Amino acid sequence: MSTRPDLRLDVERTGRIGMPEAVLCQFKTVDQATGAVTGLLDTHDTVIATRITSEQSPKLEALRPQLIGTSTMAWQLRPPTSKSVALVSAGTSDAPVADEAAITLTALGHQARRITDVGVAGVHRLQSALPEFEHADAVIAIAGMEGALPTVLAGLIGKPIIAVPTSVGYGSSFEGVTALLTMLSSCAPGISVVGIDNGYGAACAVHRILQQ
Amino acid sequence: MSTRPDLRLDVERTGRIGMPEAVLCQFKTVDQATGAVTGLLDTHDTVIATRITSEQSPKLEALRPQLIGTSTMAWQLRPPTSKSVALVSAGTSDAPVADEAAITLTALGHQARRITDVGVAGVHRLQSALPEFEHADAVIAIAGMEGALPTVLAGLIGKPIIAVPTSVGYGSSFEGVTALLTMLSSCAPGISVVGIDNGYGAACAVHRILQQ
Amino acid sequence: MSTRPDLRLDVERTGRIGMPEAVLCQFKTVDQATGAVTGLLDTHDTVIATRITSEQSPKLEALRPQLIGTSTMAWQLRPPTSKSVALVSAGTSDAPVADEAAITLTALGHQARRITDVGVAGVHRLQSALPEFEHADAVIAIAGMEGALPTVLAGLIGKPIIAVPTSVGYGSSFEGVTALLTMLSSCAPGISVVGIDNGYGAACAVHRILQQ
Amino acid sequence: MSTRPDLRLDVERTGRIGMPEAVLCQFKTVDQATGAVTGLLDTHDTVIATRITSEQSPKLEALRPQLIGTSTMAWQLRPPTSKSVALVSAGTSDAPVADEAAITLTALGHQARRITDVGVAGVHRLQSALPEFEHADAVIAIAGMEGALPTVLAGLIGKPIIAVPTSVGYGSSFEGVTALLTMLSSCAPGISVVGIDNGYGAACAVHRILQQ
Amino acid sequence: MSTRPDLRLDVERTGRIGMPEAVLCQFKTVDQATGAVTGLLDTHDTVIATRITSEQSPKLEALRPQLIGTSTMAWQLRPPTSKSVALVSAGTSDAPVADEAAITLTALGHQARRITDVGVAGVHRLQSALPEFEHADAVIAIAGMEGALPTVLAGLIGKPIIAVPTSVGYGSSFEGVTALLTMLSSCAPGISVVGIDNGYGAACAVHRILQQ
Amino acid sequence: MSTRPDLRLDVERTGRIGMPEAVLCQFKTVDQATGAVTGLLDTHDTVIATRITSEQSPKLEALRPQLIGTSTMAWQLRPPTSKSVALVSAGTSDAPVADEAAITLTALGHQARRITDVGVAGVHRLQSALPEFEHADAVIAIAGMEGALPTVLAGLIGKPIIAVPTSVGYGSSFEGVTALLTMLSSCAPGISVVGIDNGYGAACAVHRILQQ
Amino acid sequence: MSTRPDLRLDVERTGRIGMPEAVLCQFKTVDQATGAVTGLLDTHDTVIATRITSEQSPKLEALRPQLIGTSTMAWQLRPPTSKSVALVSAGTSDAPVADEAAITLTALGHQARRITDVGVAGVHRLQSALPEFEHADAVIAIAGMEGALPTVLAGLIGKPIIAVPTSVGYGSSFEGVTALLTMLSSCAPGISVVGIDNGYGAACAVHRILQQ
Amino acid sequence: MSTRPDLRLDVERTGRIGMPEAVLCQFKTVDQATGAVTGLLDTHDTVIATRITSEQSPKLEALRPQLIGTSTMAWQLRPPTSKSVALVSAGTSDAPVADEAAITLTALGHQARRITDVGVAGVHRLQSALPEFEHADAVIAIAGMEGALPTVLAGLIGKPIIAVPTSVGYGSSFEGVTALLTMLSSCAPGISVVGIDNGYGAACAVHRILQQ
Repeated sequence: MSTRPDLRLDVERTGRIGMPEAVLCQFKTVDQATGAVTGLLDTHDTVIATRITSEQSPKLEALRPQLIGTSTMAWQLRPPTSKSVALVSAGTSDAPVADEAAITLTALGHQARRITDVGVAGVHRLQSALPEFEHADAVIAIAGMEGALPTVLAGLIGKPIIAVPTSVGYGSSFEGVTALLTMLSSCAPGISVVGIDNGYGAACAVHRILQQ
Repeated sequence: MSTRPDLRLDVERTGRIGMPEAVLCQFKTVDQATGAVTGLLDTHDTVIATRITSEQSPKLEALRPQLIGTSTMAWQLRPPTSKSVALVSAGTSDAPVADEAAITLTALGHQARRITDVGVAGVHRLQSALPEFEHADAVIAIAGMEGALPTVLAGLIGKPIIAVPTSVGYGSSFEGVTALLTMLSSCAPGISVVGIDNGYGAACAVHRILQQ
Repeated sequence: MSTRPDLRLDVERTGRIGMPEAVLCQFKTVDQATGAVTGLLDTHDTVIATRITSEQSPKLEALRPQLIGTSTMAWQLRPPTSKSVALVSAGTSDAPVADEAAITLTALGHQARRITDVGVAGVHRLQSALPEFEHADAVIAIAGMEGALPTVLAGLIGKPIIAVPTSVGYGSSFEGVTALLTMLSSCAPGISVVGIDNGYGAACAVHRILQQ
Repeated sequence: MSTRPDLRLDVERTGRIGMPEAVLCQFKTVDQATGAVTGLLDTHDTVIATRITSEQSPKLEALRPQLIGTSTMAWQLRPPTSKSVALVSAGTSDAPVADEAAITLTALGHQARRITDVGVAGVHRLQSALPEFEHADAVIAIAGMEGALPTVLAGLIGKPIIAVPTSVGYGSSFEGVTALLTMLSSCAPGISVVGIDNGYGAACAVHRILQQ
Repeated sequence: MSTRPDLRLDVERTGRIGMPEAVLCQFKTVDQATGAVTGLLDTHDTVIATRITSEQSPKLEALRPQLIGTSTMAWQLRPPTSKSVALVSAGTSDAPVADEAAITLTALGHQARRITDVGVAGVHRLQSALPEFEHADAVIAIAGMEGALPTVLAGLIGKPIIAVPTSVGYGSSFEGVTALLTMLSSCAPGISVVGIDNGYGAACAVHRILQQ
Repeated sequence: MSTRPDLRLDVERTGRIGMPEAVLCQFKTVDQATGAVTGLLDTHDTVIATRITSEQSPKLEALRPQLIGTSTMAWQLRPPTSKSVALVSAGTSDAPVADEAAITLTALGHQARRITDVGVAGVHRLQSALPEFEHADAVIAIAGMEGALPTVLAGLIGKPIIAVPTSVGYGSSFEGVTALLTMLSSCAPGISVVGIDNGYGAACAVHRILQQ
Repeated sequence: MSTRPDLRLDVERTGRIGMPEAVLCQFKTVDQATGAVTGLLDTHDTVIATRITSEQSPKLEALRPQLIGTSTMAWQLRPPTSKSVALVSAGTSDAPVADEAAITLTALGHQARRITDVGVAGVHRLQSALPEFEHADAVIAIAGMEGALPTVLAGLIGKPIIAVPTSVGYGSSFEGVTALLTMLSSCAPGISVVGIDNGYGAACAVHRILQQ
Repeated sequence: MSTRPDLRLDVERTGRIGMPEAVLCQFKTVDQATGAVTGLLDTHDTVIATRITSEQSPKLEALRPQLIGTSTMAWQLRPPTSKSVALVSAGTSDAPVADEAAITLTALGHQARRITDVGVAGVHRLQSALPEFEHADAVIAIAGMEGALPTVLAGLIGKPIIAVPTSVGYGSSFEGVTALLTMLSSCAPGISVVGIDNGYGAACAVHRILQQ
């Protein structure tokens, strides 16, 4: 009985869908995480590791990533494209999720521009920031708590908006469920949503748009 | 064994808390509903019946209410106060809930002013309607679907805001749960919330404020 | 006290975001629904009505829509664009949701092509249908029950995929919740999701991509 | 790619709504928390920090707050108003939430008076405490477990009552969900509710009433 | 293949536990319901049918029950015991559940006394009704909405209290879930709870106590 | 735009997995249901239609099924195998689900034997029925309400047990969720579970075992 | 502003309901816990502290309790009554909950007899233990995981049965929710249920029965 | 009062159902866990301990298990049968659950073969691994996140498939609930499911099949 199988990597995924397999580190041992990254470095043009634990972090930094965020790293960035993505969020607390999205986009060659502190409790801040969205090819809107930011934004601009609910908040925000439901039920047309805290997924959804 | 007890009414409630007992008709037989209203007419200065079913409606109309809404009626209005309440909602679909709140307020002597079609997907409509809120002593904000209206409003004005989630919507709005959670988790300070579709409760919460 | 406010329409929305306000008929009276459509016909280049009830349907058909689906209608189609969208679904049961998406896309000028009966329980059917996706600018993937279709598809193609969970199913599919959660938790990168049964929202999300 | 944006503060919020932006510390780094407080001290008449972690606490105390509670601090109190608020709770376990409400009220200039140990399992205690409510302009009722306190109180007095469900309890209290639902479904008229453990929000809701 | 198996009745149950098998009619055809009752009439000392549908009702009445309630009937009452049970509820809306409990108790020989209109929003009504509880051997407390009645009662008397949450209410009462959770999380000691709307179960729980 | 796509049938499924595609009628129009059955009759050795609505039933009966149950029909039965399956359930209310399982098994050639009225509230009935299980090759255990039957059975026999939770029950049985959770959390080893009310799925799970 | 109110104890509770106020330690500081116990020791005939944390434990042991369990202690036991209670559970994992019930009963003067390892996966063990129940005046049935034990037991004996769901289990037992729902939906008549892990509440429910 | 009852073991279980009682260690003290294992070693042909904590692990290793996995151990393996089971999973993160299943199967004498890295996001990997399933007598399919693996597999092979949802994932995977619901609602026929993370249960379900 063998209980430690080798890693089989989906090396042809990039050819099929234009996106490499990322390494979700959270449920891996330190060895599994570094092993997966090392394996991908040989066979892929860019490598992204997400949800890195504090225990895994030093070992992965030793592999010399080019981008280091709160819990995301990337190696072997793709050459820059002409595309730019606006990452909008209400507060500083969403940084780990925004990092994950920004690093993924950068690794895939796109420019990621952060627009922060534009919560809907002061809607004028969002309105005065509208010029910053003008040159964006797509928008990632990150919000916890009541998650209303993408709804208000979607009534103001016609660009693609990918919404990311975050687990930031307490009590009645139910670890992101409230923000998720708000985004899914939005009265503003055309918001689409990824899973709670899934900055990587939002970046990939945008990449699908940008690589057309 | 007696299975049809007479109705005991809490006739002193008005003296204690300044609000009469309303008749929640939904779970009563036609006879129980008309009996409760008749009983209250003798002993109370104002009488409100809510969630009237289509079966109960003709019999209650025969009791000559002074106010008739979608599923709410009132008899023996209190003399007018100097107070005015703004009832704000995003769409026409929330009418039954708004009716319930407006009729309750009117029965209690307050002026109820409706401000509609100010959904957050067109936030400028809300902003241009701000002068209409100026003379209001309090605001009831009614919203279904994603329920973001009270949040945006609470960032714009400093008046008391009672939020009412409604069961309007489908799919991911989960019969008002999404709007309820949004309102409870609002990033804007000082919104308080009543139960789903509870227009009567919102009016009473405002009445508690206005009778101080 | 006025309890029947006139309709205020957000006539400038198209200018801001390139999409008109649709009429969600489900929670409106017959008069409110026809009134809203009539009002929009004068002021908008295209008009879409969704979730039309059987009671509303004849009155709305009398307004001579150009497209009629299970519970969706459209008037005044926009001139055709060069864009094409693939609508993929597993069964015939999802037709009302697919209709809503297809009619919305067509009203906005895009070509909507249906690819059906490609459920993941016979994955070869999906694989043999891949050439049909080649000329699509984006994909809307509609699925009820376990909702795995978008996940398998997202591992095969790199185009934008908007997933729509439907309430088709019984028992453990919990009226679309299971499909929704599956789509949000997908192990395939870059799927984004709209609310349960929200074909209109999916079409708008695609329109945001196509109008860039 | 910049992943550490500066803080943008909504300095005009006080002018608009009469309440300053509070600093929700829980999801901030120590530096972000102290930075936010410092920034607000320069631009606001009063500053409140909530949900301070034990790691952040010493650094924030070094900024010399005038009020220190279990996990709340305040700087630069507003001048006293003539208003008084009763904070009623059933047990000592709700202290962190009651602290958050009391400190927020005090920072805003109002008097906060605590009435404790008046649980509904000994309803006579609540009844004998009624005189303590007489001079209150509003009431904040805090309860965990089954959350029945605001319901009983609302049948006894006619003042504004803001209910705060707390996560105190275990098992079937589901971290505050039971108390929340109880408060939202109350058979007593006119209770309005804020999110679980949201003492700050309750204080702001009361402040909206008192500043009229 | 036989798809219509005969009914096997648990005729010895009364001997083992002192309670006969009741006929839960809701999910049975008319023939299955009358067949089950007829079968039990031959073999049991008392027979109880619950949740009778309007379609089944005439056929079951034709079997000449001795007790007929909203949706409960009983045949062949047991001889009276000396025991008395108080059935307390807040409103007339809980009548079907209270009927089910009262008829079950009566069929088992106990006296069922109804105490109604003692909602916790007017706690003095409950206090003034306390003498009515004095001769009761046990109490069944029935409540919908926020379900606080058993909690307040349990702080006033030391008798056995079986609480029954009902699905009466709307919106945030979630068809009895709120009342159920309230009763399970009660801060008053020694309440035990049966399932939502389960008046029959409450009566049996009391019967277990009384037959000791 | 074509909104009525033809049906694509997965005609090779039987070759791959030994089970034909069934027709889930509930969400189909009458024409779609009869069309699907007719299409399968030409290309498959056996045809099963499940969750037939009362509207569809006469049209499907006109296609002369060989087996007719509450809401299930089958055409073109497979030749008998030597295998026998015990279908055990507690009450007559589970008949539609048991029918669905029994008809599916019979269509696939296996013998389906029903064992009813063996609820766990009279555990001796189950124990005395044990000889009836002796010649079964597998067991399908169907239960609603608290769903404990498979657990008790799994402690008594070592045969494969597929458990089916049903939506029979009310209140706290939450339309099958309680029975589902009970079966998934069983303290008896080796029960596996299918979706709520999914008699067809249970029969197929057993068929996978029997065709080995 | 006083944020540390003194403790008000409900010293007359014992007179009213025959049960003293217990000290729920979990959400108290060490000082609050010892203070509450000390206060009760002066004014009550027996004192019970539940859900004692490991930090509080030594300080409370210093107060010389007469009974010490996993996380429960009692001081000043009441004189023995002639009553005996059977505490039945399936495994050793439920010990903390069983301890809480047993110590509470003992403090109130009753005899608590433990019957363990009688899980329903080996139903013969429960049947062979039936004589041990014969002299019990009431039964407390404790179960985690699928929670079927009280159902099987209630079909075998006619004594009062109070069921306690525990949070023992993992995955699909959802921290006691599955066991709770099972117990509430039991097909066996007359089980009543207390909150998850609430051994104290179960003992008090039994005490209400025994003190009649 | 005795609060530490001895362990009663169900030593005849193997005779009845062919599977020994396993020791679920998670909720036991170190002494209880080692005591239970030691007790079983004397009376059973094979012994399995699951969900071993890091604290218990060294003491249990001292008892010299023949198989040691992430949190599972086994002693006294049964003689090999001729049966083989395929354990298929998408990633390395599911190792603890797969270990539990593999060790249980091995202890019961069956061969457990692991097939990993066959996630549905690269469906060709699963298709190219199909020959590895050919000699399996049954399949255990383990998946977290969206849990689609068993569905795709069930459309490709006709063997018995037991699906195990795992708690691997974050955010919208809700600790295994999403995968569980997906598996229960599968559009592919004949998947049956065990509880979240219940590798032991899956192995026992397979053993029931194999021992026929």
